[in-house]
Amino acid sequence: MSKVLIRAMVLPMTGADMFYPQGEIAIENDRILAVGERGSAPSGFVPDRTLDLPNDLVMPGLINTHTHAAMTLLRSYADDLPLMPWLKEKVWPFEDKLTEEDIYWGTALALCEMIRSGTTTMLDMYVAMDQVAEAVLKAGTRAVLSRGLIGNGPNGESAFQEGCDLVRRYHGAGKGRINVMFGPHAPYTCSGEYLQKVKAEADRLGVGIHIHVAETQDEINILREQYGKTPVQWLDELGLFGGHVVAAHCVHLTQEDMEILARRHVCVAHNAESNMKLNSGTAPITELRAKGVVIGLGTDGASSNNNLDLFGEMRSAAFQQKLQVDSTVLPAYEVLEMATVGGAQTLGLEDVGMLAPGFKADLITIDMDQPHFYPRFSIPAHLVYVAHAGDVRTVMVDGKFLMEERKLLTMDVSEVCKEAETRAKRIAEELKG
Amino acid sequence: MSKVLIRAMVLPMTGADMFYPQGEIAIENDRILAVGERGSAPSGFVPDRTLDLPNDLVMPGLINTHTHAAMTLLRSYADDLPLMPWLKEKVWPFEDKLTEEDIYWGTALALCEMIRSGTTTMLDMYVAMDQVAEAVLKAGTRAVLSRGLIGNGPNGESAFQEGCDLVRRYHGAGKGRINVMFGPHAPYTCSGEYLQKVKAEADRLGVGIHIHVAETQDEINILREQYGKTPVQWLDELGLFGGHVVAAHCVHLTQEDMEILARRHVCVAHNAESNMKLNSGTAPITELRAKGVVIGLGTDGASSNNNLDLFGEMRSAAFQQKLQVDSTVLPAYEVLEMATVGGAQTLGLEDVGMLAPGFKADLITIDMDQPHFYPRFSIPAHLVYVAHAGDVRTVMVDGKFLMEERKLLTMDVSEVCKEAETRAKRIAEELKG
Repeated sequence: MSKVLIRAMVLPMTGADMFYPQGEIAIENDRILAVGERGSAPSGFVPDRTLDLPNDLVMPGLINTHTHAAMTLLRSYADDLPLMPWLKEKVWPFEDKLTEEDIYWGTALALCEMIRSGTTTMLDMYVAMDQVAEAVLKAGTRAVLSRGLIGNGPNGESAFQEGCDLVRRYHGAGKGRINVMFGPHAPYTCSGEYLQKVKAEADRLGVGIHIHVAETQDEINILREQYGKTPVQWLDELGLFGGHVVAAHCVHLTQEDMEILARRHVCVAHNAESNMKLNSGTAPITELRAKGVVIGLGTDGASSNNNLDLFGEMRSAAFQQKLQVDSTVLPAYEVLEMATVGGAQTLGLEDVGMLAPGFKADLITIDMDQPHFYPRFSIPAHLVYVAHAGDVRTVMVDGKFLMEERKLLTMDVSEVCKEAETRAKRIAEELKG
Repeated sequence: MSKVLIRAMVLPMTGADMFYPQGEIAIENDRILAVGERGSAPSGFVPDRTLDLPNDLVMPGLINTHTHAAMTLLRSYADDLPLMPWLKEKVWPFEDKLTEEDIYWGTALALCEMIRSGTTTMLDMYVAMDQVAEAVLKAGTRAVLSRGLIGNGPNGESAFQEGCDLVRRYHGAGKGRINVMFGPHAPYTCSGEYLQKVKAEADRLGVGIHIHVAETQDEINILREQYGKTPVQWLDELGLFGGHVVAAHCVHLTQEDMEILARRHVCVAHNAESNMKLNSGTAPITELRAKGVVIGLGTDGASSNNNLDLFGEMRSAAFQQKLQVDSTVLPAYEVLEMATVGGAQTLGLEDVGMLAPGFKADLITIDMDQPHFYPRFSIPAHLVYVAHAGDVRTVMVDGKFLMEERKLLTMDVSEVCKEAETRAKRIAEELKG
């Protein structure tokens, strides 16, 4: 039995008006017991440890709803290229060289960066997902994992089997810290038949689906040519949208597409920075929210973005919508919602994303005693428009400290950085040779 | 006589291929003596102090080419509003309450934030510029200062006199750390006659001009109605573009405007984040660069943006152009150039913006031994797409350390934060009452 009391400013994300400037949060084992003003913890609560951080802000850990964690190994390996040469000449040849161990260390590097930038949960799509799961178990974060499935590729069938195995082996692992989804890559890389097979198996095993949808204009053109439909209409017709589905990107949507996503309760993982940097376009997030679609934020892989920093992603998501629509849309608190509450809903996690009694103790503290956080007029505006990754001081997941005073407690950062550097450079050398 | 040797990775910004992975830089008093591989300092050079930072990167200090520093006091005071209500109901009433002392402390807060985020030089436009100058002298940074002139306002004439006084009192102050320009606010807030008077005086005193140009579509409409011309054409016709001119924003430009700016050697201060957040639009930076226009980056005031972080600004500038044009434009090194070399040219400073013998010792070091900077494939891509303000470890201006190990050496940060908080809250209270 562990009992922790944190005294700090508290932004629980349970409503736009909820803020405790002199607050506290009581944690028992993996869950939050009480949140409120100083002195509101139950009278019988005697903490083993009290953290007095009066100039820190406690908020829910950030949730990254779309990434390819191990692609940190490709960070800044190739940039500023047109999409197809970038993929064909750089990304894919590099990925072909990745061993399972490389994927472990690339994911470990991603998790170090995520913890240090206040991200406590990710939705990942990649290969060798056992390695990813083991890295997550080691790091102590929360994750939803999906084995990426290129149905049209030579390994479509074996990948599907691996996806099924992943559910059996890791769904609920780490005392529930890991969940699993199926990860059919996209409607243009999986046939209709394949998608329906995946969907049937997902339903049978009771897990969700994580898929790229309508990311680029090229994808729209391919689907129109192949099926005479938009990606969203095609997936709907296939019956993919019955259960829990996370559609990543959703940049190019018609009005009908948006209505389908809303009606079918599809959650959207929005990746503003990837969409900008790769010239994919501006997702209609303002309209989707108006239609009631649940939105989470994602960084995409570090190969496209080139970091895993959700603070930057919050700011970019706001800026992109304000540029596209007008300066009033996506006010700061709504952006924070997407990165926390919305992220949890997107991932189908019912007890994270807010600081409330009974919720999991997944939280971060931000050092607000720095020049860029003065004057303190609006905490939400500070978090979205001002804060950066380096401002995170403390990270807790499942009631366990993963970082204190910016020092990682579960990972040997030097070892992880060294392994990642050596492995990435080895592959780059092989490709030169 | 002070002699400092810094051993680190060196990105001198003297050319895209110039990088010393195991470099060193020798500094004598306020200037750089030598830059190169380890061991390249002149044999007679015996440093008083040696900094061994093998995992840090040394680069030129960043240059903020457009800001209103004291507006840090309005940070997060009002956001997510339409432009005119934001200005009329929030910003202007707040600014009306600012005392000269408030402006000192607001600027001091800005300078603390700038130093901590690696900015060594700013071009500022505001009022009570003596206060701004004194804050700069105290902080130890470099600055070009301009007294904002609303020619059409009730204080047009007295502001002009203050602008003239500022030149006499502070141009060249702080052993050359401070320069002065005239700051006529914009072509829609100053008459043609007023602008010509300012220009004549600027020429007589041998200083440049800093002016907002073509920031919003509204401005374009006003000028078209009033003069039947674009802002750029109108200013050119008035003869404003003879000497050194910094045109801030330049979002809405015709082809002819761009050609005028290029032909007249007008420098452009690009404020990507302000332009996005306020829905001003996307400046045609890619086209301007192609025409040979010198571009610097600016944050605008913390009231619009809401920080003074040029690392964020570099990333946003790249993302915005890539979104608007294509993924290949503004590659990372070019963005770095805008924030350093281009910034120096924009401000008319001939001996900053690069690390080269004879240049001023204005430099920063970045802690690259962090997970988000691995693997180390491309330093420029890391700096533009990955780095954040908190990664800056050391700041030197004019050969003097302003920050070491993230600790400010010239300013009492607690005092500055407390003064800023108290003064900003006092004004907000007055406005409520």
